[in-house]
Amino acid sequence: MNFHQKKIDKKKKMATELKDLTKRSEDYSKWYNELVVKAELAEQADVRGCMVIRPYGYAIWEKMQRVLDDMFKETGVQNAYFPLLIPKSFLSKEAEHVEGFAKECAVVTHYRLKTNDTHDGVVVDPAAKLEEELIIRPTSETIIWNTYKNWIKSYRDLPILCNQWCNVMRWEMRTRLFLRTSEFLWQEGHTAHATREEAEERAKQMLKVYAKFAEEYMAVPVIQGVKSETERFAGALDTYTIEAMMQDGKALQSGTSHFLGQNFGKAFDVQFLNKDNKVEYAWATSWGVSTRLMGALIMTHSDDNGLVLPPKLAPLQVVIIPIGKGDQMAMLDEKAEAILKNLKAMGISVKYDNADNKRPGFKFADYELKGVPVRVVLGARDLEKGLVEVMRRDTLEKENVAIEGIEDYIKNLLNDIQQNIYQKAIKFRDAHIYECDNYDEFKERIKEGGFFLCHWDGTEETEAKIKEDTQATIRCVPFMFEQTEGTDMVSGKPAKARVLIARAY
Amino acid sequence: MNFHQKKIDKKKKMATELKDLTKRSEDYSKWYNELVVKAELAEQADVRGCMVIRPYGYAIWEKMQRVLDDMFKETGVQNAYFPLLIPKSFLSKEAEHVEGFAKECAVVTHYRLKTNDTHDGVVVDPAAKLEEELIIRPTSETIIWNTYKNWIKSYRDLPILCNQWCNVMRWEMRTRLFLRTSEFLWQEGHTAHATREEAEERAKQMLKVYAKFAEEYMAVPVIQGVKSETERFAGALDTYTIEAMMQDGKALQSGTSHFLGQNFGKAFDVQFLNKDNKVEYAWATSWGVSTRLMGALIMTHSDDNGLVLPPKLAPLQVVIIPIGKGDQMAMLDEKAEAILKNLKAMGISVKYDNADNKRPGFKFADYELKGVPVRVVLGARDLEKGLVEVMRRDTLEKENVAIEGIEDYIKNLLNDIQQNIYQKAIKFRDAHIYECDNYDEFKERIKEGGFFLCHWDGTEETEAKIKEDTQATIRCVPFMFEQTEGTDMVSGKPAKARVLIARAY
Repeated sequence: MNFHQKKIDKKKKMATELKDLTKRSEDYSKWYNELVVKAELAEQADVRGCMVIRPYGYAIWEKMQRVLDDMFKETGVQNAYFPLLIPKSFLSKEAEHVEGFAKECAVVTHYRLKTNDTHDGVVVDPAAKLEEELIIRPTSETIIWNTYKNWIKSYRDLPILCNQWCNVMRWEMRTRLFLRTSEFLWQEGHTAHATREEAEERAKQMLKVYAKFAEEYMAVPVIQGVKSETERFAGALDTYTIEAMMQDGKALQSGTSHFLGQNFGKAFDVQFLNKDNKVEYAWATSWGVSTRLMGALIMTHSDDNGLVLPPKLAPLQVVIIPIGKGDQMAMLDEKAEAILKNLKAMGISVKYDNADNKRPGFKFADYELKGVPVRVVLGARDLEKGLVEVMRRDTLEKENVAIEGIEDYIKNLLNDIQQNIYQKAIKFRDAHIYECDNYDEFKERIKEGGFFLCHWDGTEETEAKIKEDTQATIRCVPFMFEQTEGTDMVSGKPAKARVLIARAY
Repeated sequence: MNFHQKKIDKKKKMATELKDLTKRSEDYSKWYNELVVKAELAEQADVRGCMVIRPYGYAIWEKMQRVLDDMFKETGVQNAYFPLLIPKSFLSKEAEHVEGFAKECAVVTHYRLKTNDTHDGVVVDPAAKLEEELIIRPTSETIIWNTYKNWIKSYRDLPILCNQWCNVMRWEMRTRLFLRTSEFLWQEGHTAHATREEAEERAKQMLKVYAKFAEEYMAVPVIQGVKSETERFAGALDTYTIEAMMQDGKALQSGTSHFLGQNFGKAFDVQFLNKDNKVEYAWATSWGVSTRLMGALIMTHSDDNGLVLPPKLAPLQVVIIPIGKGDQMAMLDEKAEAILKNLKAMGISVKYDNADNKRPGFKFADYELKGVPVRVVLGARDLEKGLVEVMRRDTLEKENVAIEGIEDYIKNLLNDIQQNIYQKAIKFRDAHIYECDNYDEFKERIKEGGFFLCHWDGTEETEAKIKEDTQATIRCVPFMFEQTEGTDMVSGKPAKARVLIARAY
C-alpha cells in the first residue's frame, strides 16, 4: 500500500464514520433500523405505521418482482387484479378467517368530505355514510372467491391460477420498516382446483418456487416445512413456510403457501360439475411473499459498513470510480467508457461516477453503504502499469487486476460473490442449528438465538408454554431433516418428530 | 372457397352469434360494455364502482406498463412507493386541490372490527376510532410533497424524478369498466425541480412520452394540447393533455401532465438553497395515465366481431389452429411445432391450439373476439400443396400463403397490422375534425360527434354556455394546428385561437 492508497483509506474511514452506522454487535436491531434509512431503502411515512419505499429500495423490490413473476408464469400462473375494498360481510363468511383478520383492518365508513364551518379545512360528510362498511384488504381470499363463483361451473374451467401484485393493509401496533408495516406490498396467488390432490400439489409447488427464489437469487438459505395448527393461516388446512435465519439467530418467515381445502369454496358457494358429473366444491390454495423479503435480504448479508447485496438483485452491480486530476481525467474517462460499454453489452448494470463535487473516499463509503457488489477504481498511476483496483463488497477484499480482460474478471467475480454470500449464510445458519432435548438447557440457550430442533408432543399446551417461557415459537415441522421419534422436552410425553423452534421476527 | 371452407365459415358464424355482441351501429355504448365482459378483459366487482381486471385484460395492461416504464426510465425517472392512506389534513393544505378531490374520496375512520353480539358477524369497534381520519389516495401530490420536504435541502438534491404504479380511489357515482371506476390502476409521476423552466420542460416532455406511446404502441392517434383553466387539474398552473377520438366521435382524455408551479412546494414548505445561495420553493410537475387507456385501446380499433389489438400490445400475437382428423393430426402437430419454435425465437408470442374439445369454428370466433392479430389455419389438404391459410384480424382478410418462409411473412404482417390500424384511426379522426364558425351549426353537428375547431374568446362564460347547451367541452388548445385569430362563434367577441371542442368520455 502506497501513500496515495493510505490517504484514500483514511478518507474512506472518515466518510464511513460520517455515516455513523451502529455496529451489529452493539445493537442488532438499531443497526437494521439505521441501515434501512441511511442506505435510502425506505423511511417511516407521516402516516401511522406506513412506509415510503425510496427509489433505491424499490429498485431492489422491482428486481425481485420481475424474477418471481417470471417463475410464477412458468408454472402457468396469470396476473389479474381484484378490488382493494372488501365488503365487511365477506369477511365473516369463513369462520376462522374472520377471527384472524377482522381485528386489525382499516375500515372505510364514508365516501365524501366537505368543507368545515370555518372554511379552513375539511370534515367527514355525515350524509355520505356507507350502508355497509368496506375493509381495506388484509388479504384477498374472500373477494377473490366471491369472484371465482362466477367463473367456475365445470371441471373444464379449472384450474384457475391467478396472482396479483398489490398493496394490503393490516393495522399493526408495533411496526418496523419492511418487517412489519400497516401497509405493505406483496403478491398473493389464489388458485382453484378440481381435486384435493391437485390443490395440495400446487401449494407445495409454490413453496418450492419461493425456496428456489430465496436461495438462488436472494442467496438466503431457507428451511422448508409445515406450520403447526396454531401458526396456520386463518382458514387453511395446511400452511407451508420457508424460514430464514437472520444474523442474530432469529427466524424470519419469508414466504407461505396455504392449502385451503374447500373452506373458501364452501364459504362462497363455489361449486362445479366434476368429471363424474357430480357437484363438488372447488379446492383452493393461496400463497404470498411481501416486501418483508427486503428485510430478510438486508439482515442476512449486510455488515457494519452497510448493505451487502446479492449481485442478481443489486440494482447497480458495478461502480467505476476514477482517481486522477486535471489532464489525467480525459484518459480515465476514455478507459472507463470502454469498460462501461463492454459490461453493459454483457448485461451487467454499471455506473461510472466521475462527479467532481464528491471525493473518492466519500464515494467509496457511499457505495459500500448501498451494497454495490463490485467497485473498480481507475487510478492514473495504476493504469500506467495496465492495472485497476477491484474491490468486492462481500469481503471488502481489494485486488489489482489487469485492465485487459477486466470484463470477464468482473463477470466471474459477480458470480463468485453470489455464491460466496450464499455459502456464508448457509455456514452461519448450520452452525446455529442445535438439537436439544433438555428444556432447561433450551431456555438458557434460546436467549442467544439460533434454531432448535426439539421433539414435540404435538399439543397446543406445550407450544403455548414454550412461547410463554421463552417467546420462541414452533416455526415449522421441517422437511429437510431426517425425523426420529423421541420424548417431548417439555412434557416428557412421546413425540413423533422434531420441530424447528426459534424466536422470530 | 371449397365446401370444407364453407362449412367452417358457417360454424364460425354460429359461434360468433353465440357470442351475441351488439353491433356498434346499433348501440355503441352497449357494444363497448358487452365487449369488455365477453372478451374477458374486466367485469364489475361486487364492490360498488370497482372492477375485477381479468387475466386477459391484465396481460394487455402489463404490456402497456412495461413499455411505459421503460420510456419513463429512459428519461431518468425512478420508481418508488408512497402510502395508500393520506391524513385528512394534508388534503386541505393546497386550496384548489382540496376542492377538486375532497368531494369524492373513501374515508377510513376506524382500524378494527369486532364480533357482534349474536356472534354471527362483525361490526366496527367504536373503541377503534382514528383521531384523524385517513383518505384513500385519489392522487398523491400531498403525501409525496410532504415526503419531499425531507429530501430537498439544496439545488444539488434536485431534480427528483419519482413515479409510482399503484391503485387510487375516487368515489364515482356513475361508473363504466376501465373508463370510470371508483378504484383504478395508474402511474403517477411526481417531479421536483430547481427552476420553473425545468419543471415546465418536464411537464411537456412527459406529454410527448404519452403521445409517443399512444401512437407507436397503442396505434391511437392523439391531439396534444393544453387545457383551459376550467379543465385544469386541481392545483395546476397548466395541464397538458392528449385527446383521442373514439369511433363514435367522442373524445377520450388519455393522459395528462401538469405543471404545478410552486403550489405544492409552498403548501408543504419545500424550500431549498438555490445556486445563488437563496432560499426558494421547489417547482413541481405530476403526470399520469391509467387503466382508462384500456378503454381508449378497445374503442379505437375494435369492431363488431370483437377486439382488434395492436400487435405490439397483444398478449397473444399469433394463434395456430389445425384442421384435420385422426392420423392427420400427428403431421399437423409436427408442422405447427416447427413454426411455433421459429416464431418464438423471433420474439413473437404464439399459441398452438389443438384442443380437441372445441370445434375450429368456435375457436375462430373466440380468437376474433379476443383480438388475436394473426390466425394461421393448418389444414391437412392445404398442407399437401405447401400452403397455410393466414387471416389478419384487422381486416379479416384471408390469404393462402406458402408454409416455406411463413415466419417472415407473419412478422411482416404483424408490422403491417400495427401500421394499418394506426393509419385507419388517423383517417377516421381526420375525417371527423371540423372547423366551425357558426354556433347554430355547431349545436346541430355536435350531436353526431366529432372534434370541432372553433374560435373561443377565452372566457369561462362561453365555455360554460357551450357545455350547458351541448354537453361538449373544450378539450384543449391544440398544438398541432396553425392558429389564426377570429371571432368567437358564441359571443361574437374577438378570439385569439381555435380550441378543440367535443363531447367526451
